Amino acid sequence: MAKDRVGFVGLGVMGGPMARNLLAAGHDVVAFSRTRASVDDIAADGATAAGSAREVAGQAGVVILMLPDSPQVREVLDGDDGLLAGAREGTLVIDMSTISPVVTREIAAECAERGIGWVDAPVSGGDVGAREATLSIMAGGSDEDFARAKPLFEALGKTIVHVGPVGSGQVVKACNQVVVALTIEAVSEALVLGSKAGVDPATIIEVLSGGLAANKVMEVRGRNFLEHDFTPGFRIDLHHKDLGIALQTAREYGVALPNTAAVDQMLQALRSNGRGDRDHSALLTHIEDLARHTIGAPAGATA
Amino acid sequence: MAKDRVGFVGLGVMGGPMARNLLAAGHDVVAFSRTRASVDDIAADGATAAGSAREVAGQAGVVILMLPDSPQVREVLDGDDGLLAGAREGTLVIDMSTISPVVTREIAAECAERGIGWVDAPVSGGDVGAREATLSIMAGGSDEDFARAKPLFEALGKTIVHVGPVGSGQVVKACNQVVVALTIEAVSEALVLGSKAGVDPATIIEVLSGGLAANKVMEVRGRNFLEHDFTPGFRIDLHHKDLGIALQTAREYGVALPNTAAVDQMLQALRSNGRGDRDHSALLTHIEDLARHTIGAPAGATA
Repeated sequence: MAKDRVGFVGLGVMGGPMARNLLAAGHDVVAFSRTRASVDDIAADGATAAGSAREVAGQAGVVILMLPDSPQVREVLDGDDGLLAGAREGTLVIDMSTISPVVTREIAAECAERGIGWVDAPVSGGDVGAREATLSIMAGGSDEDFARAKPLFEALGKTIVHVGPVGSGQVVKACNQVVVALTIEAVSEALVLGSKAGVDPATIIEVLSGGLAANKVMEVRGRNFLEHDFTPGFRIDLHHKDLGIALQTAREYGVALPNTAAVDQMLQALRSNGRGDRDHSALLTHIEDLARHTIGAPAGATA
Repeated sequence: MAKDRVGFVGLGVMGGPMARNLLAAGHDVVAFSRTRASVDDIAADGATAAGSAREVAGQAGVVILMLPDSPQVREVLDGDDGLLAGAREGTLVIDMSTISPVVTREIAAECAERGIGWVDAPVSGGDVGAREATLSIMAGGSDEDFARAKPLFEALGKTIVHVGPVGSGQVVKACNQVVVALTIEAVSEALVLGSKAGVDPATIIEVLSGGLAANKVMEVRGRNFLEHDFTPGFRIDLHHKDLGIALQTAREYGVALPNTAAVDQMLQALRSNGRGDRDHSALLTHIEDLARHTIGAPAGATA
């Protein structure tokens, strides 16, 4: 059986390299993005250029979306030039954007009425994972739709988990972003406390990494904290967007997330202070500012 | 050179097995505890029984303390029957209790004036680690005092780190307890959000453990969360005590710890609701109660 032609909408810092990995794996890709230049670029690399999401859906049985947030997904679907105008019964949409699980379930239900399948498959691993095809993919959808999406996922990522019915991928991604943000915040509180009380922050990370306090954030971002190197990585702007999704989902399902709400406000403050483009480990600087202390500086020293 | 005779004050759930490990390693132990029965017990195992902390200090060059909190340490030191009444120039006190770094530094300064050395050496690893001599020991003190304490630590623990001058051990322990508590809280928020939004909590832990959200709490307490098995382990009462130390230390050094303060209040609420004797992973039940949801139950089901 010939491979489905694969549609791809959204050729940004994540979508661009992902679409190229599909080409590299031998897939026939038809691509569209709001930025015409990125469509031209990938056409030069062997993809078929499309002028709209509708055109993509007209030419491909499976369409992958990689967009910033729920409104952009909604926008790509609707209207005369939208994906739904070009889709037909049997089309499968694989939304790899990180968006609201609630919106996902609404959209998937609308699509189901027209016989269009939906798999939500947000990723973690960032732009490096996108380029190197090592993304972690958390997919929600029916067994049948997941099976159809899986060969494409294998060209894009390393860890691929089918976590439940449609919407589940976005739910797990939201959970992931909660734990990552709250862990960065926890490590930041510990480092500022310990440093201002006179202990070398590198020692704190070393000792804590040997016990129940150990976490991946200290392992892979330890150097960033210690050297105040906040080159992204994963930007505060994006993590703030993701906590917004978690909090909105919590509100819809009647769940109280006190520390997620607090960290969301910290990320807002960092953005308002011009630090939205830094790596999320720069949450440390918010806790430092509260104490007017830079970790590693002599105890009591001001930033 | 003959080994120092080792004094031991505090023969509770931690101190009892630790003193026995010193005996097993061939040390000559003189022991005292508030509970007469535990002194008699260890005397039957080969230790010399003492009637007061003063007597212990009169018979031993190095005295280990393993007590509940700062007031008990202060109490053991002071008064006619206190340790300081029996100590002399050259005595070394090794305080393995988890107490305030600020109180530690005050006491150590008083001791230094009399030529008495102080090493603060709080541990992690719990009663299992105490019994099996696999504790992690975070020690603060001078190089000379640490060198004198080290052979004793080797009979008690596995990971032994000299983290800085006196007080540093307690600082690092406070940092450790902050990160552990905040991690348990973070995982709890994620599990309740994900479960109430319809995803299997075991799947959430599995997927999150594969990426930047990974932490030791999910690894070793995952089963406790999923099965609601909150047999301690490490009791909420004790973790609440330790966050009190972290917050008091933060106050002394001028550090703001917003999420530590929030989690401290959650632990207080759990204690006030009769759950202080459960494992600290029972923090999950606080977040569950806020949403009236038990993880793993059908979405929207009440506890």
